[in-house]
Amino acid sequence: MTLPFDALETWAAEVLTAAGASERGAALTAQACVRANRMGLDSHGVVYLETYVRRLRSGVVDGRGEPEVVEALPTLALIDGHFALGAQVGTFAMEWCCEHAEANGIAAAVTKDSSHFGAASFYSERAARRGCIGMVFSNADPGLAPEGALSAVLGTNPIAVAAPPVDGVLPSLDMAASVVAQGRVTLAAKRGEAIPPDWALGRDGRPTTDPVEALGNTMLPAAGYKGFGLAFVIDVLTGCFGGGLVSPELVEERGAAQLFIALKVGAVSNQRSYERRLRELVAAVHDAPRAEWAPPFLVPGEREARTAYDRGPAMDLDEATLTLLRAIGEECGVPFPVSAAG
Amino acid sequence: MTLPFDALETWAAEVLTAAGASERGAALTAQACVRANRMGLDSHGVVYLETYVRRLRSGVVDGRGEPEVVEALPTLALIDGHFALGAQVGTFAMEWCCEHAEANGIAAAVTKDSSHFGAASFYSERAARRGCIGMVFSNADPGLAPEGALSAVLGTNPIAVAAPPVDGVLPSLDMAASVVAQGRVTLAAKRGEAIPPDWALGRDGRPTTDPVEALGNTMLPAAGYKGFGLAFVIDVLTGCFGGGLVSPELVEERGAAQLFIALKVGAVSNQRSYERRLRELVAAVHDAPRAEWAPPFLVPGEREARTAYDRGPAMDLDEATLTLLRAIGEECGVPFPVSAAG
Repeated sequence: MTLPFDALETWAAEVLTAAGASERGAALTAQACVRANRMGLDSHGVVYLETYVRRLRSGVVDGRGEPEVVEALPTLALIDGHFALGAQVGTFAMEWCCEHAEANGIAAAVTKDSSHFGAASFYSERAARRGCIGMVFSNADPGLAPEGALSAVLGTNPIAVAAPPVDGVLPSLDMAASVVAQGRVTLAAKRGEAIPPDWALGRDGRPTTDPVEALGNTMLPAAGYKGFGLAFVIDVLTGCFGGGLVSPELVEERGAAQLFIALKVGAVSNQRSYERRLRELVAAVHDAPRAEWAPPFLVPGEREARTAYDRGPAMDLDEATLTLLRAIGEECGVPFPVSAAG
Repeated sequence: MTLPFDALETWAAEVLTAAGASERGAALTAQACVRANRMGLDSHGVVYLETYVRRLRSGVVDGRGEPEVVEALPTLALIDGHFALGAQVGTFAMEWCCEHAEANGIAAAVTKDSSHFGAASFYSERAARRGCIGMVFSNADPGLAPEGALSAVLGTNPIAVAAPPVDGVLPSLDMAASVVAQGRVTLAAKRGEAIPPDWALGRDGRPTTDPVEALGNTMLPAAGYKGFGLAFVIDVLTGCFGGGLVSPELVEERGAAQLFIALKVGAVSNQRSYERRLRELVAAVHDAPRAEWAPPFLVPGEREARTAYDRGPAMDLDEATLTLLRAIGEECGVPFPVSAAG
């Protein structure tokens, strides 16, 4: 079954409103989820509605919360998220940065008492479309640890950077500090498949290829001490800098902290030299000499942009996803839009 | 043979001055190199003097160059390095950031026409000691590429983040976008040892365990597309943003570009909540449950701090390093200080 993304987004917003979200919170969260689906980041897509609905109903997320600037210097703000939906807090924070970077060249906002905000590139790319290089850092529930650990220590704390496009290519990196998302281990467990030995730890703290063992302990950081160090400094940049919570304290991402930075392209250099340099950089990647058997080399963000192009205006929904969405719709009294589906 | 670090630093500065560096350029570069040795980062230590001397003599680096602010907004500057020694440009840039972050909470400086600046943590930790979270990004000569590549595509572009200490622990991450430094492949080749298959590519673009093959092609990025993406966006943040050069254009790091950001701790939150949160974060790492056989878990930067403690005030120099340093001293007319050695 296929469903237009627009219909999916409208339905998702209605579901969130029914679960207690404000109109703006619901609209932005629905937009963030469906955008993830458009780009092939299905783990952050509409399947996440189940989590948001549960958290709105239990009070972990405050659907009526409104992010608020509680301290502000001309180019740096502290934003209290009041436990609102993360997409609303993050959008508010990045908008603040872009506005203040317009005249000042740079601006940053650190949030506290925020919540899960979906894919970090939702915010960095918003800045990129406003002529800024956007940087985003977030902490998250504990989800990774070094070899030998008997439980997760730090969050999978993502970093995202996106920049204004040239010739239709919008560079966008969005990476978690873990090797891969835990969702891939869950999937392997469901399918009864082994996982690579560098993904996760078993209950004894040693790397395991058994996904069920892995789910009983923790994911490994990407690139060993590099990923672990990245997770640590992202907690410093977010929870410590803003006086919010740090990842070891987080449960269901309640009180997550984020840092947003916008750098206005052309503020101290000029727009044309930016474009010329970026064009050279993109060409260096695309035109790099490679073996006949090698796939084309891509700029970060291109794979997702191509997926969005390939998926077009509608999404194929598999039976498991359909069942999940129908159940959510039923629970919230917003029937899944079968009529719009083809 | 052991030599006091102080004597090593004095000698290194004299060597650089003899090779054409200004007094300040020589002093900061010597300090950066010897600091790397103190912390066990020997690949960025005094052995690098050979490179700096060669580049000063050939004119790749302009020893009389002086970094200059060419554009400035209240919290963002463009700095022309005039091809001066990177340690001088980087220190100048980070000092600008710290001064301007004092009143504004945040400041950034992007450099162009800079050069190799050694370990990026030299600058981020300078900010940390001034009460700021310091972030540093640099591009570098091409040194990594995805599987299938027949040559290096992007620089090993490092990122460093350091933050003000609590209870003597100064968090400091400094990581290149490559799996490991190329120096480790060179070392394996010298010793006739195999390298792990995820470090580098052979001439056919496939991963190799033969270090000689690897030296004929390129290093792999850390964590695959993540490290490659990181290298790419660091080029965007440095060369593209400042209108300087991008890594595929760099030769001997002439014209390298860097971005420095300082975030003043306590500017919008408060110093005590920063310290409380950081203390919790450090404790979460140190006290994490781990298997009996697992070594203690460390905060990024702790390993280097412990090495500095263990090395104490003097350094053991092996025969190969001694031979190299004596040759440099002879070439520059500044005899290696055997008298100070024990």
